Amino acid sequence: MSQNERFVKKITPKSVDFSRWYVEIIQKTELADYAPIKGMMVIRPYGYSIWENIQSIVDKRIKESGHTNAYFPLFIPEGFLQKETEHLKGFAPEVAWVTHGGSDELEERLAVRPTSEAIIGNMYAKWIKSWRDLPVLINQWANIVRWEKVTRPFLRTTEFLWQEGHTAHETSEEAQEETLMILSLYKEFVETELAIPVISGMKSEREKFAGAMKTYAIEAMMSDGKALQMGTSHNLGQHFSKVFNIRFEDRNQKLQYVWQTSWGVSTRLVGALVMAHGDDSGLKIPPRIAPFQVVVIPIAIGDWKKNILPKAQEIANGLKKKGVRVKLDDREEFTPGWKFSEWEMRGIPLRLEIGPKDIEKGQVVTVRRDTGQKEALAQASLDKKVIEFLSDIQKNMFEMALKFQEENTHEVKDYAEFKAVMESKRGFIKTFWCGDTACEEKIKDDTMATIRVIPHDIEKKKNSRKCIRCQKPSESLVYFAKAY
Amino acid sequence: MSQNERFVKKITPKSVDFSRWYVEIIQKTELADYAPIKGMMVIRPYGYSIWENIQSIVDKRIKESGHTNAYFPLFIPEGFLQKETEHLKGFAPEVAWVTHGGSDELEERLAVRPTSEAIIGNMYAKWIKSWRDLPVLINQWANIVRWEKVTRPFLRTTEFLWQEGHTAHETSEEAQEETLMILSLYKEFVETELAIPVISGMKSEREKFAGAMKTYAIEAMMSDGKALQMGTSHNLGQHFSKVFNIRFEDRNQKLQYVWQTSWGVSTRLVGALVMAHGDDSGLKIPPRIAPFQVVVIPIAIGDWKKNILPKAQEIANGLKKKGVRVKLDDREEFTPGWKFSEWEMRGIPLRLEIGPKDIEKGQVVTVRRDTGQKEALAQASLDKKVIEFLSDIQKNMFEMALKFQEENTHEVKDYAEFKAVMESKRGFIKTFWCGDTACEEKIKDDTMATIRVIPHDIEKKKNSRKCIRCQKPSESLVYFAKAY
Repeated sequence: MSQNERFVKKITPKSVDFSRWYVEIIQKTELADYAPIKGMMVIRPYGYSIWENIQSIVDKRIKESGHTNAYFPLFIPEGFLQKETEHLKGFAPEVAWVTHGGSDELEERLAVRPTSEAIIGNMYAKWIKSWRDLPVLINQWANIVRWEKVTRPFLRTTEFLWQEGHTAHETSEEAQEETLMILSLYKEFVETELAIPVISGMKSEREKFAGAMKTYAIEAMMSDGKALQMGTSHNLGQHFSKVFNIRFEDRNQKLQYVWQTSWGVSTRLVGALVMAHGDDSGLKIPPRIAPFQVVVIPIAIGDWKKNILPKAQEIANGLKKKGVRVKLDDREEFTPGWKFSEWEMRGIPLRLEIGPKDIEKGQVVTVRRDTGQKEALAQASLDKKVIEFLSDIQKNMFEMALKFQEENTHEVKDYAEFKAVMESKRGFIKTFWCGDTACEEKIKDDTMATIRVIPHDIEKKKNSRKCIRCQKPSESLVYFAKAY
Repeated sequence: MSQNERFVKKITPKSVDFSRWYVEIIQKTELADYAPIKGMMVIRPYGYSIWENIQSIVDKRIKESGHTNAYFPLFIPEGFLQKETEHLKGFAPEVAWVTHGGSDELEERLAVRPTSEAIIGNMYAKWIKSWRDLPVLINQWANIVRWEKVTRPFLRTTEFLWQEGHTAHETSEEAQEETLMILSLYKEFVETELAIPVISGMKSEREKFAGAMKTYAIEAMMSDGKALQMGTSHNLGQHFSKVFNIRFEDRNQKLQYVWQTSWGVSTRLVGALVMAHGDDSGLKIPPRIAPFQVVVIPIAIGDWKKNILPKAQEIANGLKKKGVRVKLDDREEFTPGWKFSEWEMRGIPLRLEIGPKDIEKGQVVTVRRDTGQKEALAQASLDKKVIEFLSDIQKNMFEMALKFQEENTHEVKDYAEFKAVMESKRGFIKTFWCGDTACEEKIKDDTMATIRVIPHDIEKKKNSRKCIRCQKPSESLVYFAKAY
């Protein structure tokens, strides 16, 4: 058994135990570690650098679409949450409560924010006076605490990092437009940058955000066939503006309540990267989001520091100048074989190897992480080829994920087949549903599948279809799946 | 009274009431607002964009010096803080305690992090095994909670944002080197980017961080003559590594405790910008950190949208292409006069005015925020001149602040003069001190002045000087000041 195999063999194969594979990958690649507090994790530098790349891209898109960042308090007085019963009911079981400041007991308990609608609504009521103050388009990058019963690194943790946008508008139409604009911004971001195809649409009443009029989401299929919610965009209507009294004088000098939206993506996206692309050798990170896009490994044979390292450095520097994120691994304490499998496990899109023979031949050996394909390239044309490879890897990773999603999206002829698919194959089931919450719940009880989204761009043929379970007439095409 | 005057007159003059001036500036320029939770603030978009500029520059310097970012939990189990009595004593009165998760009472209370040495120490003990794992050079951007009795926006708030670096090293020398490297990084950043001169040096025992072996700081003089601590860098020695058992096998296979440092700057720096540079007309933001470096104001006379606006847009776009951060204020609901004083109040370094006469003459009127100097410039050479102006404004703001600091740094012949200066003139007093904490405390009781720093680069002439208060021999040159 080679050193390479020994190293990788320590990871439980996906096919044997997906959950164990997932947490082993996260720990071994140092994306994150368990913290000594229930359900909490430490995001280690390698994982955090992926989050930083996500942040910087999402932040740019949010700003380009007219929003600015701000920062609101971590703590929300209990009374604020109580103002809004639906919202409170949704979040109360998950709230961490601060009861003491120093040695003094507080007069009113403070919630560690489980989301910021209440505190932001309170401030908007103070800031918004006239239609001239609208729209308010604010985003914040923040940490969130939800006291979750069952946790899993990145996917569901007691504390997580996210961005939450909170906007206020003059009209209902503008709020709806904003909600959908953000949904498509998220979809475009996830597909372009994370190379993960998503389905998008509305949530059912049962699945929507506590306090929202409508919730929209993007959902992706993980490589075990389960769905993961990747981002949500809520049209809040006037629900919170009425509770927090956010009013403005309209163009006809009449007082009106503002129309609001809120939306977010979180560190959960790092978990999605692992589960959507990873394999038994470890992570596969799409080039556009990878901390390093290329790793250069000089083969330590003979007097390599004199004969090979300078060329490896030259290659790494040349690529850096072209804007490629490069890691030169010149560590002495590890063998090339060890380095190959370590960076493979860490999911670097492209590996460059350079040894004595390559120096002789004026070449570099390239190994793609997505296909495993090995190719010797002339040093002279390397930069151009590497950039082409990275672009091709990004494209190929998206296509592989899309193919997997399509192959695992099922249409079923009846409820028996629905149940059989959910039991044996998982994936998405694209079918019709009557619109009744009780029916939706029955399906969940039977199969553990929930409605992921109701696509909003489909043609509605009234009464032309029947609910997969109850056979009542249906207007709603929906996607069902088991979900994280 | 012009509209301009009316607008600005709403700000209390600095000379009348500095504290009121400070909070009025912050609210009127929308840097921040008071939150409905004791001692907390909301950082509004204008203030947050300054913080984002600070973040991006500091983050770049921290990364260039070899550090990576990570993220550790918000909550710290009470037991962790109790392990370290000195640290606990320092922070316990300021801790916000989480006692309940949902409806369940927690078995152990959780501190909302007042600083992260304890939780990070716990993780380092798990990660560090060998000298090969060292140094560990990690930084985190995070929110911090300290239950402060007296608060003031940006300067001292129950919650604030900061970066905290936490490093672990093989040797004491390396840790000391890191501590001082970061101190000089902070000094260089604050002077170059914020245009605020600082004095740097060590803290006295009384003023050092709870748990540190040595604390170093940079201190600046605010325009009321009081000192503000702008950043700290701590050499923690082996204090926390012994408490949290952070050990490594050294190069001779012996177990050793690591040597640590920690260091940080916070949103307090935004407050420093206000107090160091602001005047009775409002903020003055140095060009390198300003959200907008230039505001272009078309003079709304006649058919200005047709005759003036296109040229104003052309000018704004031309400057943007050169990398200048430009705001074109084409709002219709405000007069030019109103806009002049609004952007003056908001501290934009350079204002460009363009009206019908300027169009005729092919010129633009420029007004510098630092000097008030007004100058007509030919449109043809505008870009180049604007860039020169910005560079000159940055330089001039630093020099003005340095001049103020020098003029308000006093040397005194005896303790009576010391007291007189602190009562009448404030500023820094550069003098000698015996090194005795009791003497330091007596000085504080008499004058409210504390030792800001003990400069570390001065020549020590043993026994050549005497303590300003007790006349005992002194080795230590120190700076005293009243401080925020």
